[in-house]
Amino acid sequence: MATNEETVREFWRLFDEADYDKAGKLMKADAVVWWPNTREVFRGAAAFMSVNRNYPGRWRASVERVIALGDEVISVTRVESEDTAESFYATSFIRLEDGLIREITEYWGDNSEPPAWRSSMGISERF
Amino acid sequence: MATNEETVREFWRLFDEADYDKAGKLMKADAVVWWPNTREVFRGAAAFMSVNRNYPGRWRASVERVIALGDEVISVTRVESEDTAESFYATSFIRLEDGLIREITEYWGDNSEPPAWRSSMGISERF
Repeated sequence: MATNEETVREFWRLFDEADYDKAGKLMKADAVVWWPNTREVFRGAAAFMSVNRNYPGRWRASVERVIALGDEVISVTRVESEDTAESFYATSFIRLEDGLIREITEYWGDNSEPPAWRSSMGISERF
Repeated sequence: MATNEETVREFWRLFDEADYDKAGKLMKADAVVWWPNTREVFRGAAAFMSVNRNYPGRWRASVERVIALGDEVISVTRVESEDTAESFYATSFIRLEDGLIREITEYWGDNSEPPAWRSSMGISERF
């Protein structure tokens, strides 16, 4: 049986492939997903997979960090558009039960250049 | 001596008060802060406090979640403008050493209404 960390990595790999049918099978049917940035909650794996299927554009996902704590796994994933220059980081707090995803609270932030006031201060470097 | 979790909570409390002099004292002088969304790195507590002092507007910070794992503490903080309707979530991966902050990797995302395509699908609720 897969560890919770392996399940979360597989979940994101399936997102990377846009295989939402298979990704949904890694969730409990009545799983709940919270997106605090827009204060949206998706009730049920089917609702969450539906929003992903309908999200405009084709997106690639690469996991940059995973912290596994028993029933809770925290992941940081870079999500990049294949069509445009848009990209995001998603930070996901994922609770699992019986090896399946029971609940996700996921914070999203878009990537951009630093604002002019900060670049002009000269106190940071780019990486 | 404060626990690492207490130190992180105090750090954010000082941000909430915009007391960057005191907040800086909770960091190692040569602490490093990574902001992956803009690919900026701030080297040294003084540089990081300088960017916060110069950040336009007055911001309030309230910690919504803390996970403490020995030398690493993960925090989720809601940051709200006092002047405008703007708000953000910051997800911070904080490494401490000798009770002081040694390194932060911090993901930022702004808050907004859901886009029209999602609202019109009727598959999520607001919370």
